Amino acid sequence: MAVTPFSASLESLDLDPVFAMHRGGKLEVRSTVPVRDAGDLSLAYTPGVARVCTAIAEQPDLANDYTWAGGVVAVVSDGTAVLGLGDIGPAAAMPVMEGKALLFKQFAEVDAVPICLDCTDVDALVETVARLAPSFGGINLEDISAPRCFEVEDRLRDLLDIPVFHDDQHGTAIVVTAALTNAARLTGRPLGELRAVVAGAGASGVAVTNMLINAGIGDVAVSDSKGVIYQGRDGLNPYKEALARRTNRAGFTGSTEEALAGADVFVGLSGSTLPESAVAGMARDSIVFALSNPTPEILPDVARRYARVVATGRSDFPNQINNVLAFPGVFRGALDVRATTITENMKVAAAEALAAVVGDDLSADYVIPSPFDPRVAPAVTAAVAEQARQDGVARR
Amino acid sequence: MAVTPFSASLESLDLDPVFAMHRGGKLEVRSTVPVRDAGDLSLAYTPGVARVCTAIAEQPDLANDYTWAGGVVAVVSDGTAVLGLGDIGPAAAMPVMEGKALLFKQFAEVDAVPICLDCTDVDALVETVARLAPSFGGINLEDISAPRCFEVEDRLRDLLDIPVFHDDQHGTAIVVTAALTNAARLTGRPLGELRAVVAGAGASGVAVTNMLINAGIGDVAVSDSKGVIYQGRDGLNPYKEALARRTNRAGFTGSTEEALAGADVFVGLSGSTLPESAVAGMARDSIVFALSNPTPEILPDVARRYARVVATGRSDFPNQINNVLAFPGVFRGALDVRATTITENMKVAAAEALAAVVGDDLSADYVIPSPFDPRVAPAVTAAVAEQARQDGVARR
Repeated sequence: MAVTPFSASLESLDLDPVFAMHRGGKLEVRSTVPVRDAGDLSLAYTPGVARVCTAIAEQPDLANDYTWAGGVVAVVSDGTAVLGLGDIGPAAAMPVMEGKALLFKQFAEVDAVPICLDCTDVDALVETVARLAPSFGGINLEDISAPRCFEVEDRLRDLLDIPVFHDDQHGTAIVVTAALTNAARLTGRPLGELRAVVAGAGASGVAVTNMLINAGIGDVAVSDSKGVIYQGRDGLNPYKEALARRTNRAGFTGSTEEALAGADVFVGLSGSTLPESAVAGMARDSIVFALSNPTPEILPDVARRYARVVATGRSDFPNQINNVLAFPGVFRGALDVRATTITENMKVAAAEALAAVVGDDLSADYVIPSPFDPRVAPAVTAAVAEQARQDGVARR
Repeated sequence: MAVTPFSASLESLDLDPVFAMHRGGKLEVRSTVPVRDAGDLSLAYTPGVARVCTAIAEQPDLANDYTWAGGVVAVVSDGTAVLGLGDIGPAAAMPVMEGKALLFKQFAEVDAVPICLDCTDVDALVETVARLAPSFGGINLEDISAPRCFEVEDRLRDLLDIPVFHDDQHGTAIVVTAALTNAARLTGRPLGELRAVVAGAGASGVAVTNMLINAGIGDVAVSDSKGVIYQGRDGLNPYKEALARRTNRAGFTGSTEEALAGADVFVGLSGSTLPESAVAGMARDSIVFALSNPTPEILPDVARRYARVVATGRSDFPNQINNVLAFPGVFRGALDVRATTITENMKVAAAEALAAVVGDDLSADYVIPSPFDPRVAPAVTAAVAEQARQDGVARR
């Protein structure tokens, strides 16, 4: 077994404030009940605990009330699509999953446990998460590469009676839909009059497109590295084929830039760059969401020369599209009512609640609230919980 | 999906202080770093976190220093052998695993996450835990029924480069060995002069027996529900066959009671009862550890009429043999040095350290410290860490 001392290099790494902050990790598990003496021990552990176990064995739903499992989210990744870093593996993905767990707690008091799995096969991922399910009240899938992520989520949603939510897809979709709803309101147009181009057909691109279609967008074309996706294009995987069937009614077959000519909305989720001329050629009052991180597809200062509303994923520009606006409240709301799933309606309710936080303060530089706006998580939580009840998926 | 309201029954359950204490579970996940503003967010999460991920991808052992994974223990069960309740399944096992996690934190500041798995097949358990391994610094197996537990542990120890420790086996073995070492010292005899009978050939019986043999016990016979185990007995599983080969040099073939005649030590791990006459027939200065919970094989008041030293698993009698004396310090010590495994020597070191806490205060009613003795976990921690270094399995 290789045994290597690292102390020297750690000292130098810790000079970097990022490394210093991550030293030892960013989470801890704490007890919420006291164990000061043998009396406490006999309640919290043996022999008392046996009565709780027996009650749950007889009435399994009691696990939702007398264990932490029903209220805790597993943040599950296989490390194949981490940030912009790609397939870096489960160990290297852990700092992101810990960060996610930290945000769950910080923004919505959701207990979350990072689970980085040493397997990438779809069957193995599905089977492993299903086996873990008794320990958790929800599954947040994270940074699993497309197109595997779609099948993993679809199968787990079918298998499990707890919420399964691939945040890269639906978190992004909820926040983009909220921001676009407000941007459309600002420019006085219903979504049905807008034609959009989504650059990127990965997890987030597909989910954003689906949600915009459900929200009634006029038309949307999706592009990948080979250009706009259309029915009959060679080499489409089944997910892109399905996407081609329900998008691009205008019938574009060329590049992203060609589709953008005269378009109203650009949503960049591609990691590529967008030339200034492409934005210049969009319709009047155009809306540009250049969401790639850390480098937006086009810099906001440039885009604003032509576009009415510009958003990015970055905190140092106005209108930050950040998933943390959605996932804490979505899970808090779902867990509060012990929802068996997260329905499409619940995602729409989250987007509407998020958009509504902006209210009368709506402006070109304020189509989406700040991640630190304390109204956000409670608004999303309440909307998601209420919608779960209306959809009949709430257990309490 | 069945949706059933429980509020009425919960109110009545919560009148029971055990249920009231378990309401909502007993654990939470907390952040150890502040996230107050966008600046903190950019360090703890994107974009800063990408640098930590990249560093770990390039130098995987850095995960031990810059994530929580290296310091966190998974308390893993399949719910097949929970307390004396048997196979109650993973959901009903959760209160015990949460309790275990709570004790890890309480007694040795070990972060632990309860993981109850919805599978019982050995291959499935091994495969699942192996896939989870990048998320944890150690695996505490718990309440997995014998003989599957032996193979699960053996295979995981081979597969993984982090400590794998089936507490029902080794935690019990460490505490019994410590108590027996002190009882032998009290009665002025080396372990090599003692003949023992272990009632129970499940996880704890097998492990206690193995550890007593390694510690140099004179002879030990093990019995199960069919009587003493001996070479050639019909229907032995491979683990009992192996046990038969290294135990019972005296060649007993009858009942536990027959083997106990003239024996020095009884260790009860069987859930059965021991007649007073059997204890009466043991050798002078006999040592009786009646460890079944909640009902000892023989009540201490009765056993003390004949035996010099009596111990039970209960807190309301002297000499409580409780695994919490071992597992927190064992894992704390192993994690502190990022041990790749827990060696036999490390278990022996834990038992010796635990026995040594008693020191000069040794008496018939004090052969093992109280679980709440604050010297215990630090002593075990230090001994285990030091032994890991000596055994060359420490990574730092």
